[in-house]
Amino acid sequence: MNTPFPSKPRIAIVGTGALGTYYGAYLARAGHDVHFLVRTGRAAMLARGLRIKTTTEKFHLKKVQVYGSTDEIGACDLVIVALKATSNDELKKLLPPLLGPATLVLTLQNGLGVEEPVAEVAGPDRVIGALCYIACERTAPGVVACRFPGVMTIGKFGKPAGERTHAVASMFSKAGVKCEAQDNLEEMRWRKLVWNVPFNGLAIAAGGVTTDVIMADDGLRTLARRIMEEVVEAAGKFGHEIPRSFVDLQFERTAKMGGYRPSSLIDFEDGKELELEEIWGEPVRRAKSVGAAVPRMEMLYWLIRHRLAARKGAKRKR
Amino acid sequence: MNTPFPSKPRIAIVGTGALGTYYGAYLARAGHDVHFLVRTGRAAMLARGLRIKTTTEKFHLKKVQVYGSTDEIGACDLVIVALKATSNDELKKLLPPLLGPATLVLTLQNGLGVEEPVAEVAGPDRVIGALCYIACERTAPGVVACRFPGVMTIGKFGKPAGERTHAVASMFSKAGVKCEAQDNLEEMRWRKLVWNVPFNGLAIAAGGVTTDVIMADDGLRTLARRIMEEVVEAAGKFGHEIPRSFVDLQFERTAKMGGYRPSSLIDFEDGKELELEEIWGEPVRRAKSVGAAVPRMEMLYWLIRHRLAARKGAKRKR
Repeated sequence: MNTPFPSKPRIAIVGTGALGTYYGAYLARAGHDVHFLVRTGRAAMLARGLRIKTTTEKFHLKKVQVYGSTDEIGACDLVIVALKATSNDELKKLLPPLLGPATLVLTLQNGLGVEEPVAEVAGPDRVIGALCYIACERTAPGVVACRFPGVMTIGKFGKPAGERTHAVASMFSKAGVKCEAQDNLEEMRWRKLVWNVPFNGLAIAAGGVTTDVIMADDGLRTLARRIMEEVVEAAGKFGHEIPRSFVDLQFERTAKMGGYRPSSLIDFEDGKELELEEIWGEPVRRAKSVGAAVPRMEMLYWLIRHRLAARKGAKRKR
Repeated sequence: MNTPFPSKPRIAIVGTGALGTYYGAYLARAGHDVHFLVRTGRAAMLARGLRIKTTTEKFHLKKVQVYGSTDEIGACDLVIVALKATSNDELKKLLPPLLGPATLVLTLQNGLGVEEPVAEVAGPDRVIGALCYIACERTAPGVVACRFPGVMTIGKFGKPAGERTHAVASMFSKAGVKCEAQDNLEEMRWRKLVWNVPFNGLAIAAGGVTTDVIMADDGLRTLARRIMEEVVEAAGKFGHEIPRSFVDLQFERTAKMGGYRPSSLIDFEDGKELELEEIWGEPVRRAKSVGAAVPRMEMLYWLIRHRLAARKGAKRKR
């Protein structure tokens, strides 16, 4: 597996929600050979291409290569998994046609346990993961509006970042997506959970509230901090030392966000699937497996899981 | 204060919600001299009296003594506080006219910290408290429908039950309300909280669900048990040993309840005040003051407190 990452890679984007569309568009604009697997809105994307609008720029790609199956795309150098984790069961079918002898697979998914389903199909050595810090929305097929630019950090699954991971990071940076390779993907994931577990979770469990509401309520704000401390303690048991200053920084940033509606709350209120297991379930299970005390995280997991089940039940009854 | 409790006591019922109406009606039916302080529906009660319907009997008292102020009632031998705890600030004004040299005050309120406001006005030696096990609803002024009869246990504030507490229990029993005096009022209160904290709380925090929904969801059911264990641990720190079998019994009984809608959920959904501090806030504060770990109880308290505040905010905006 020492084949270097090619300078003109063939790239597949699996999934064209907000993230897949956004990152694929930047790579395509930079002249890369990008192939989009599109599940809904293929005709619209063929007819009208891609439109990206951020706070600082907007651009339109008139022609994009779109496909209805990964068989039609064939082997690539880089596969970017931009499906939601709740669709990971489909990877067994979707990935094999895209894999050549030296293909890398980059998953953009949130939470814990998202590289494993890719590794099962592609082998662990091919897998890299990204943490995307971005606030964007797909407003129509091929159309993405972005309120916060798509910074990402990437890392190799189970190992420090190698040459190829750095090459992928560099490719993104050159294409206009701020990207950095780091050596500890698992720690990066835990760090992102420090914010996501409490704020995405409480936004739902407290009855559908934005971050400013959590910050303005003494109890909820203290609760968010206690939950952050539980995540930090659990991460510590896996050897990831997250300093207290990191928790403080999360709070300072959140205080400045105003009325931010976390992505999980948007999904929940829109009746969409949630990364329940990746953001809450798996972190709770891993924490408990090493004896970390996470009573509040677990309670949050159970409350959200119930709300989701109740929502499904209500849908069935309609 | 060794005056014995009179065999023909003069009784005031302060508050004619479901409980005040129900217990007052039983005492009046037994021939006692009962004086009701009525805040809403006085004309209806004067015109039509009281109607009680349980699963086994119904009765109608055509004439009852109703008043608009405690000044009009004057000194009594027994004052029954049947207001909700959220109105306890009013006791400073309401109680003094009712107090003679040997008056007892019995509070029917739930939770912790409900005898203290009575003791402040009447002195601690006059105070007794009741735990009411009852499921009833006031469907109109003077009209109460009861699905589960009003069993009560009573005890003296801060002391074992004395002769007068036993006399009050005996008066209730003779009037058709199963009543027992016990020696440890505080322990009785903690025991009732073992059920009320998790089930009344989760019914609200999980999004408005009945007890059968909690029992049918693995996560919520386990959570209810963990919260019960926290209540038991906290009670233990105050010297009240509640055996594990008590927790098991609560579960067995709840499993048989079917789709029971806890009183706090009813109040919450009807837009009424809740005993937030008495059922959740004060138990959490007392538990923490003696070093008991109650992370889930506290989280439940904060979640419900927020929901209540949000409900008030929504009302103001209308």
